Amino acid sequence: MKIAMLGSGFIARFYAESLHSQRRKDHLVMVYSRNEENAKRFAGDYNLPHYTTFMEEAIAHPDVEIVLISLPNHLHEIAVGVCAKFKKHVICTKPLGRTAKEAKRMLDQVEKAGIFGGYLEDLCYTPKFLKSMASIKRGEIGNVLWTKSREAHPGPHSDWFWDKEKSGGGAIIDLGCHCVEIGRNFIGKNIKPLEVMCWADTQVHPIEAEDHAIGLVKYANGAIGQFEVSWTFRGGMDLRDEVMGTEGTIWINSFLRTGFEMFTTGKGGDGYVAEKAESNTGWLFPVGDEAHELGYPHMFTDMFNAIEENRQPLETFYDGYVVNAILDAAYKSAESKLWEPVILEDWRGDEPEEHQKKWNSHDEDHYLIKEEILPNGDTKLILRHKQTGVVTQKVTHGKE
Amino acid sequence: MKIAMLGSGFIARFYAESLHSQRRKDHLVMVYSRNEENAKRFAGDYNLPHYTTFMEEAIAHPDVEIVLISLPNHLHEIAVGVCAKFKKHVICTKPLGRTAKEAKRMLDQVEKAGIFGGYLEDLCYTPKFLKSMASIKRGEIGNVLWTKSREAHPGPHSDWFWDKEKSGGGAIIDLGCHCVEIGRNFIGKNIKPLEVMCWADTQVHPIEAEDHAIGLVKYANGAIGQFEVSWTFRGGMDLRDEVMGTEGTIWINSFLRTGFEMFTTGKGGDGYVAEKAESNTGWLFPVGDEAHELGYPHMFTDMFNAIEENRQPLETFYDGYVVNAILDAAYKSAESKLWEPVILEDWRGDEPEEHQKKWNSHDEDHYLIKEEILPNGDTKLILRHKQTGVVTQKVTHGKE
Amino acid sequence: MKIAMLGSGFIARFYAESLHSQRRKDHLVMVYSRNEENAKRFAGDYNLPHYTTFMEEAIAHPDVEIVLISLPNHLHEIAVGVCAKFKKHVICTKPLGRTAKEAKRMLDQVEKAGIFGGYLEDLCYTPKFLKSMASIKRGEIGNVLWTKSREAHPGPHSDWFWDKEKSGGGAIIDLGCHCVEIGRNFIGKNIKPLEVMCWADTQVHPIEAEDHAIGLVKYANGAIGQFEVSWTFRGGMDLRDEVMGTEGTIWINSFLRTGFEMFTTGKGGDGYVAEKAESNTGWLFPVGDEAHELGYPHMFTDMFNAIEENRQPLETFYDGYVVNAILDAAYKSAESKLWEPVILEDWRGDEPEEHQKKWNSHDEDHYLIKEEILPNGDTKLILRHKQTGVVTQKVTHGKE
Amino acid sequence: MKIAMLGSGFIARFYAESLHSQRRKDHLVMVYSRNEENAKRFAGDYNLPHYTTFMEEAIAHPDVEIVLISLPNHLHEIAVGVCAKFKKHVICTKPLGRTAKEAKRMLDQVEKAGIFGGYLEDLCYTPKFLKSMASIKRGEIGNVLWTKSREAHPGPHSDWFWDKEKSGGGAIIDLGCHCVEIGRNFIGKNIKPLEVMCWADTQVHPIEAEDHAIGLVKYANGAIGQFEVSWTFRGGMDLRDEVMGTEGTIWINSFLRTGFEMFTTGKGGDGYVAEKAESNTGWLFPVGDEAHELGYPHMFTDMFNAIEENRQPLETFYDGYVVNAILDAAYKSAESKLWEPVILEDWRGDEPEEHQKKWNSHDEDHYLIKEEILPNGDTKLILRHKQTGVVTQKVTHGKE
Repeated sequence: MKIAMLGSGFIARFYAESLHSQRRKDHLVMVYSRNEENAKRFAGDYNLPHYTTFMEEAIAHPDVEIVLISLPNHLHEIAVGVCAKFKKHVICTKPLGRTAKEAKRMLDQVEKAGIFGGYLEDLCYTPKFLKSMASIKRGEIGNVLWTKSREAHPGPHSDWFWDKEKSGGGAIIDLGCHCVEIGRNFIGKNIKPLEVMCWADTQVHPIEAEDHAIGLVKYANGAIGQFEVSWTFRGGMDLRDEVMGTEGTIWINSFLRTGFEMFTTGKGGDGYVAEKAESNTGWLFPVGDEAHELGYPHMFTDMFNAIEENRQPLETFYDGYVVNAILDAAYKSAESKLWEPVILEDWRGDEPEEHQKKWNSHDEDHYLIKEEILPNGDTKLILRHKQTGVVTQKVTHGKE
Repeated sequence: MKIAMLGSGFIARFYAESLHSQRRKDHLVMVYSRNEENAKRFAGDYNLPHYTTFMEEAIAHPDVEIVLISLPNHLHEIAVGVCAKFKKHVICTKPLGRTAKEAKRMLDQVEKAGIFGGYLEDLCYTPKFLKSMASIKRGEIGNVLWTKSREAHPGPHSDWFWDKEKSGGGAIIDLGCHCVEIGRNFIGKNIKPLEVMCWADTQVHPIEAEDHAIGLVKYANGAIGQFEVSWTFRGGMDLRDEVMGTEGTIWINSFLRTGFEMFTTGKGGDGYVAEKAESNTGWLFPVGDEAHELGYPHMFTDMFNAIEENRQPLETFYDGYVVNAILDAAYKSAESKLWEPVILEDWRGDEPEEHQKKWNSHDEDHYLIKEEILPNGDTKLILRHKQTGVVTQKVTHGKE
Repeated sequence: MKIAMLGSGFIARFYAESLHSQRRKDHLVMVYSRNEENAKRFAGDYNLPHYTTFMEEAIAHPDVEIVLISLPNHLHEIAVGVCAKFKKHVICTKPLGRTAKEAKRMLDQVEKAGIFGGYLEDLCYTPKFLKSMASIKRGEIGNVLWTKSREAHPGPHSDWFWDKEKSGGGAIIDLGCHCVEIGRNFIGKNIKPLEVMCWADTQVHPIEAEDHAIGLVKYANGAIGQFEVSWTFRGGMDLRDEVMGTEGTIWINSFLRTGFEMFTTGKGGDGYVAEKAESNTGWLFPVGDEAHELGYPHMFTDMFNAIEENRQPLETFYDGYVVNAILDAAYKSAESKLWEPVILEDWRGDEPEEHQKKWNSHDEDHYLIKEEILPNGDTKLILRHKQTGVVTQKVTHGKE
Repeated sequence: MKIAMLGSGFIARFYAESLHSQRRKDHLVMVYSRNEENAKRFAGDYNLPHYTTFMEEAIAHPDVEIVLISLPNHLHEIAVGVCAKFKKHVICTKPLGRTAKEAKRMLDQVEKAGIFGGYLEDLCYTPKFLKSMASIKRGEIGNVLWTKSREAHPGPHSDWFWDKEKSGGGAIIDLGCHCVEIGRNFIGKNIKPLEVMCWADTQVHPIEAEDHAIGLVKYANGAIGQFEVSWTFRGGMDLRDEVMGTEGTIWINSFLRTGFEMFTTGKGGDGYVAEKAESNTGWLFPVGDEAHELGYPHMFTDMFNAIEENRQPLETFYDGYVVNAILDAAYKSAESKLWEPVILEDWRGDEPEEHQKKWNSHDEDHYLIKEEILPNGDTKLILRHKQTGVVTQKVTHGKE
C-alpha cells in the first residue's frame, strides 16, 4: 500500500515509525502539513518522495492509494470530504468526529463514495486485547457483566488538544473514545448502548475542558461499560482494562506494568523512557515496543488486509460514529447530572430486548445462591426457596 | 481487656483468631449465640470460661469490660442498647446500621451513656492503608483528587447476608461500607460528602438485593470517592484501593497480589487457601497472614489503646453513621437514577466552602498547562493566555 | 515475659518496636550498651525501667527472665556465656556465630546449662514463609527440587558489619545465614547438607570482605539450596524466595513488590520510606508493616510460647550451628574454588542415603517422559523404552 | 527475501507464523522435511509453492535466497555445508552446534564460502531485551556486575530433544544457550568469558541428559553471568532476566507476568493458552503476542536488513560458537565439579586485563563505604581509612 499522511505531529510520527518498521511492504509516499517546515522535516525523517502544504494535492496524488488522517479533530471531516471527492480509501485517527453528527456525516460521505473507511482505534488491536476477545468469544469467562477501561496520564502533547473548540472537549473526547470502544467490544458490538451517566470536572489545569471524568455506559443486556479518563494522573500512562464475566475475569495492563522494571540512580544517560513517563530516575517501567503494545502493527495489518480482501476492518467509521454518540451522551450527562440516552439514528446491531436472567436450581424447591468451603473445613450451601423467597443455609461439618 | 463476643459466625471467628494470636494481653472471656451448640463450640474452640444464649447475660457479666458485636446487621441496634444499659464499652462490626437513622440512634445511645463506641472498620487499619494515610498527611501526593476503593468477591458467607431484611441490602451495604469509609479517609474526614450517584443491579444471583454496584461520592472540595462492589466477581477476593493526587498516586492491593504466588498441580493436599479463594489448583495467590493484611490486629490495638488512653479511636460510631448516610444516598440514587444528596443532620466537620482552584503562572500573561520532553528531544510548553484564554505551544528543538 | 536487651543499635530498635507493639504482654525491662548515652537514649525511647553499661548486670538482674542478644557478631559467644552462668534463657540474633566452631561452643553452653536457646532467624517466620511451609508439608508442590533465597541491598547499617574481624565476613555471613536456613527449611531440616560451591567477590566497596556471593548447597536427597547475597544491589531491599517442586512452584516477594505502589513527584514530605529504600521520589514500593513482613511478631510469639510450653522453638541454636557450618563451607569454597564438604560433627537429622528416583511407567515397555497438547490441537506423548533407552514420540492429530 | 525452511516441526511453525504475519515482504517459498507428509502439510498450511524431501533440492532451488535451518541439532552442520556449497545465505536456529568444535566448523564453512551466517538467538531480540541493552549502553545502570537469565518449563516438544545423541545434551544445551548469550550481551561481547562452574542433575525424568542445571560464567572484568535452566519447572514457561549494575537494576519477565491476567472457571472453551502453559482453568497468564514477546519479528528484521545492508547481524555464527564454547565448559564442570576454563581458540574480543577497582574517596584519608538516613532521621557515614583500613562511622543526629 502507498499511503499519504495528513499531519506531521506526535501521532503522525508514531504511525510512521510503526508503518516503516519490521520490513512491511506498505509505505508512506507523501506527507501533508499546513506548515512547510514540518512537512519537509517529516518527509526527510521518513524518507518520503513527496511533501506538500496543500491537502488536495496530497490526497489526489496518483501514487497515493490510501490516506491516513492524523490531523486535529476539527479537520477530520474536511479531510474525509476530499478523500471522498478523489475516491481514495481513508483511515482516520481517533476520535472520528467531535460529535456524533460530525461522525455521521463522515460515515455517509465514505459510504456514498464507496471508499474504504477504517477507524484507527489502536487500543482495540493490542495483542492482549485481541487475545482477550478470542477468550471471551470462546466463552471462557461466561457472560460479560461489567468492563472497566482506564486511560489516565498527565495530559496530551499538542496545544490544539487543550483547546475545546478544536478538539471537541477534554479527557472524555481524547481518552474516552478509546475506553468506550474497548468496553463495547468486550460487551458485544451488537448490544445496543442505551444510556450514560458521567461525572466530569476540571480539577487541575487552567482550561475550560474537563481534565478528569468517570462514566458508566449501560447496555441493553444489563452490562455496564465503565470508563475512567484523566489528564491529572501522576506516574506515567495508566492503561488498564478489566472485565468481569459470570465465569471469569480479565485484567490487562498495557503500559505501566508489563514485566519490565528498571531502577536507576540517574547517574547515567537521560534518554526517552516511554510515552508520558514522568521521571528518568528511581524505579521505571519501560515498555519493550511501545507501538506494538499500543496495537499499531496489528491495526495497520488489519486495515490493509481488509482493503485487499475487500472486507470491513475490525474497526470501521460506523464504530467511530457509535463511539461519538456515546460520548455525546456522556457530555450531556456531565452537564445535566442525569442518565442521558444514547441517540443513534442509525443503529445496525440487535434490537434491545429484555435480557432474561437464568437462575440455577439446586433442587425442585430451591435456587442455589452459593456453595462454599469454610476455613474449618465445613461445607455451606446457601439456598433460596423458589416460592417463598426465604433464604436458608445448610452446613455440613467437615468432611467426615 | 476482657471481652464478650456477641455472635459466633464467620466474622466472630476471624476476630477471635486475631485477638488470641501474638500473645496479646486482651482476651475473650464470654461468647453469646442464639444457638447453644454454636456458643458451646465457639467457647470450646477458643477456650473461653463462659458462654450463654442470653445477650443480656453476656453483656452484664462482671468479668466483661468491653462488648464486641459480631451479629447480623439487624441486631446491632438492640445489642448497643443493652451495652448502654449496662454501661459497657462497645465495639461494633461493620456496617454500623442498616440505615443512617438506625446508626444515629446507636450513636446517640452510646454518647448519652458515656460509653466507648468503636467502629470496626478493619480496612481502614490495614498496614498498607495506615502507611498511605501517613504519606497523604505529609503531602507526598499533593491534594487528593479521586479515590477508588474496590471490594469484589463471589458473595458472603452467611445466609442472613443474602436476606435484604436482615442485612439492609446487598453488596452496597456489605462491601460499600468499607469502600466509602476508605475514600472518606483518603479525601479527609472533615470534608463534607455532598451527593452520590450510584448504579446497582442484580446481575447473577436469585436474590432481591443488588449483587453489583458502582457509586461516585462527591465531596465539598470537588474530590470524588468512587466505590466498586460486587458479589459476582470470579477469581477470589479483589481488594484494591487507588488514590490520585496532584503530586502522586497510590495503588494498594490487599489480597490477590501481595507478593505470594504459588502453582500447584493439585496432586497434593486440598487445604484452605484464602478467604473467598475459588480454586486449589493452578496459580494461587495466598495471603501470608490474612487477619493482618485485613487490618484486624492494628484495629483492635487502636480500640483498646483508645479506651485506656481515654481518647477516640480512629474509627468511631460517628464515622459509622456518616458511612450509613452516604450508603442511604447511594441506595436512593440507584432507584431514582439521580445524584442524591447525602443527608447528615449531625455534621461535625468543616462547612462546605467553594474550593478555589489555584493555577500556576508561567509568566505575567500566561498560565502553564504542561511542560514535556518529546521522544526526539524537543521540549514543549503548552500555555494559556490569562486574558484571552487562547492556548499556544512553544517548542524548543533539542537541548541546544 | 520480661526481657533484657543486649545492644541498642539498628536491629535492637527494630526488635523493640516489634515487641512493644500490638499490646503484647511481653516487655523489655532492661537494656545494655557499652555506650552509656546510647543505653540511656534507648531506655528513654522505649520506656524501660533499667539500663546499664555492664553486661553481667543486665543479665543477672532479678526482673529479667530472658535475654535478647542484639550485639555485633563477635560478642555473641561471650553474652551466651554470661546467660549460661546466670541460667537465663537466651535468644540470639543471626548469625549465631562467626564460624561453626563458635556456634557449637554456644550451643554446648546452652545445653549444658539447661537454658532455652532460641535462634532469631526472622525470615523463617514471615507469614508468607510459614504459609509456604504448611503447603509444602501438605505436599502441595510435591518433592522440593531446588530453592533459591535472595537477599540483596546496598549494604548494612553499622560500621562493625563492614569490619571482617567483628562480623566474621561480608554479605555471606550477614545475608547468607538467612538464605541458607530458608533453603534448609524448604528442603527439610532432616536432610543433610553435603557440600557447597560458592563464588564470592568484592566488586564495589573499599572493604576486604565479599560484597557479592552466589552459593549452591547440595543436600543428601539431591535437592539444591541456592543463595544469592549482595551488598551491591541498587533499588532497595530485594528479598525473594523461590521453590521448585515436582508438583508446583512457590514465589515469595517479601519487600519490594508486596502490593503497595506509590508515585510521588517529591514536592511533599521526605520521610522514611522503608528499610534500605534508595529514593523518596518517583515510583516507590513501601511495605505496610515492615516488622511483620520480616517475621518479627511471629518469631517472638513462637519463642515465648516455646518457653512457656517447655518445647523447642522452630529455630534453635542447633539450627544456627548448622547454618554456620554451611557458611564455613561456602567461605572455604570461595577460596578453593572447589565443592567443599559441610563439616557437621554433631548431626541430628537423617543419615544421608542414596535417594532413589522413581520414574512413571507409561506401559509395560515404556517410561512416560512427557505428554502435551500442541497449539494446533495435536496431542504428543514422549516415551522412553525401558530396556533400550530409545526415545520416541507418538502424535495424535487433533482430538478426533 | 525468499526463504527455504529446513524442518517442519514446532520451531519451524513458530518461525513461519512470524514470517508470514504483519504484511512482511519476506516469504517462505520452500520447505524441506525428511517426511513427505509433514513437508506437504507444512507447505499447505503456509501456502508455499514448493516442498521436498531432499535437502539439496531445497537449498539449491533458484528461487531461494536464504536458508532457515530449523532441524534437530545434529543436522545443523550438514545443512550449513550444503548452504556453503550452493553459496546460499543461511540463518540457523539455536544452539548453533552441539559442541564448540562443531560450531567452529560451521563458522569456518560460512566464512570461507563468503555467505551470510545469522544465529537465530531470538531472546536477544525481544523488545524488552533490546530496550534494556540500549539503557545499559547509555550507562543508565552503571557497570554490570551480575546477570541472571532463567529459562525453565516442563520440558521440550520433540522427541529428539530428549535424546542426548541428537540434541547434544539436555536443559543446558536446549535452554542454556539462550541464557548464556543473554548474559554475554548484558556484560559485553568484547569481555572474554574465562571459566564456568556448573551444577547439573537429572532430577525428575527417565532420561540420561540433565533436566536441571545452574551455572556461573566468570568474565574477564569480574562480572558473573548466571544461568538457571530446567525442564522440571511447573507452572508454565518461566523466562526472566535480571541485571545488577553499580547504578541500577533491570528485571525482565518475558512470559509468565506480562500484564495480562485471566481467571476462568473453565466452564467455557479449552483452547491453547500459551507455549508450555500447564492449565486451562484458574488464574492464567496469557501472552499477548507470543512470537513478538519472544523476539522473532525483530530478529528476522535484523537478519534480512543485515543481508541487504551487507553488514553483520546482532547475532552471528561467531556468537553461536562462543556460546557453544561456554556450554562445553559447563558440561565439563558438571562432571569434574571444578571451575572449567572456556576454551576459545578463536577469540575476537578484548584481551583479558586485570580490571581495576575504583573506590570513592570521602576525604583525603578515607574512602566512603556508605551513606544512609536511618528511620529516626539520623544520617550515618561509614568510612574506611585509606592507610590503616580501619572502618568507622559518623552519625549526625536528625537534621537539626
